[in-house]
Amino acid sequence: MRMRRKKNLNEKLLALNNLIIAKSDEKDYRKAAETPEYIDFSELFGNNNPVYLEVGCGKGQFVAEMASRNPDINFLAVEKSDNVILAACKKCEALPNVHFLNSGAEYLLKYIKPNSISRIYLNFSCPFPKKRYASHRLTATHFLKIYDTIMQKGAEIHQKTDNRQLFEFSIEHLSDYGFTLKNISLDLHKSDFEGNIVTEYEARFSSLGFPIYRLEAYLK
Amino acid sequence: MRMRRKKNLNEKLLALNNLIIAKSDEKDYRKAAETPEYIDFSELFGNNNPVYLEVGCGKGQFVAEMASRNPDINFLAVEKSDNVILAACKKCEALPNVHFLNSGAEYLLKYIKPNSISRIYLNFSCPFPKKRYASHRLTATHFLKIYDTIMQKGAEIHQKTDNRQLFEFSIEHLSDYGFTLKNISLDLHKSDFEGNIVTEYEARFSSLGFPIYRLEAYLK
Repeated sequence: MRMRRKKNLNEKLLALNNLIIAKSDEKDYRKAAETPEYIDFSELFGNNNPVYLEVGCGKGQFVAEMASRNPDINFLAVEKSDNVILAACKKCEALPNVHFLNSGAEYLLKYIKPNSISRIYLNFSCPFPKKRYASHRLTATHFLKIYDTIMQKGAEIHQKTDNRQLFEFSIEHLSDYGFTLKNISLDLHKSDFEGNIVTEYEARFSSLGFPIYRLEAYLK
Repeated sequence: MRMRRKKNLNEKLLALNNLIIAKSDEKDYRKAAETPEYIDFSELFGNNNPVYLEVGCGKGQFVAEMASRNPDINFLAVEKSDNVILAACKKCEALPNVHFLNSGAEYLLKYIKPNSISRIYLNFSCPFPKKRYASHRLTATHFLKIYDTIMQKGAEIHQKTDNRQLFEFSIEHLSDYGFTLKNISLDLHKSDFEGNIVTEYEARFSSLGFPIYRLEAYLK
């Protein structure tokens, strides 16, 4: 169910102190990246801890849990839906190591400095099942180029999804780009992977008996 | 159920005209490869068609069907169990484009010339579920090195399995070795892959509701 746009949403977003409002007016994201407005992570977080990026954080359940478990890691969580990011920001108000950016993934190069991200999370991203929308999938090659640019050497992408076709697509596109894949789980809840953070969505899907897929990828 | 050793097995094997008996006395397969006895494919098949290799062909149902569908491809099928290869050889007696080699995969370098194989099939290989036997899995790195040596540039490995752990292991080891993965199916019988040859084993497993996994891999 699509959420209704909340009343006075803009005012509510502006009042948040953990949100960077970053919607560029430039419709061509490549052009937008030509005039970067890089976030200063040291200033934003008040330290030089590693920064992990979640692309498409939804209502923030995963990043909230990760950030409270890992106070020495900074988290930047990106989400393009205003309604949804509002909920996520509220959930993380008490966590100094989480900030949000309301932006589509294609604009990351405008806001994030090259070689500055230590890990990227892609959790239950929209699968865009129709082939003609395949370029919207967050592991399409043009997104991998963006991640490659902003990731530090050896940084990892961690992906989870319940969608088989998206996972097949991800393995193929990451591999074709040159990423090495490791720690593959084709049924995460039956694997020996420890420390998994199970969001409501993941729990519901898994309880129906469907497998959760997970991978890690890095450039050698 | 393990098959009993057939009566007069050796005589039966020697009487076959599509079997190369290739068991080296040398227990160290690396040493065995130092004194190669390369099969002359032109002589064996009577033509210079591409040679596809199936490693672990079992009773030969897959190779029999592939070979009858593809008369312009030569197939060399390898199997180390004498009992099992006897059944496979009998099944393919009428197919001039299939020959068998009764050997373990580790001895391939002794019998197969470098850069001579156009494709490798790994179908429902033994998963060796226990970690201490992981080196026996047919996608362990030392086997990948052997395949890399005997495969022509751009040749593909095609793997199918019903075993989740083996498939995870395969993705990880192929990727780590430098193979690019493509045409991944995490549930082959629900995918749009055409021309799949369903062996008895595959049909039985699939009918129980378990997914069949499939991948293709090549070196760029």
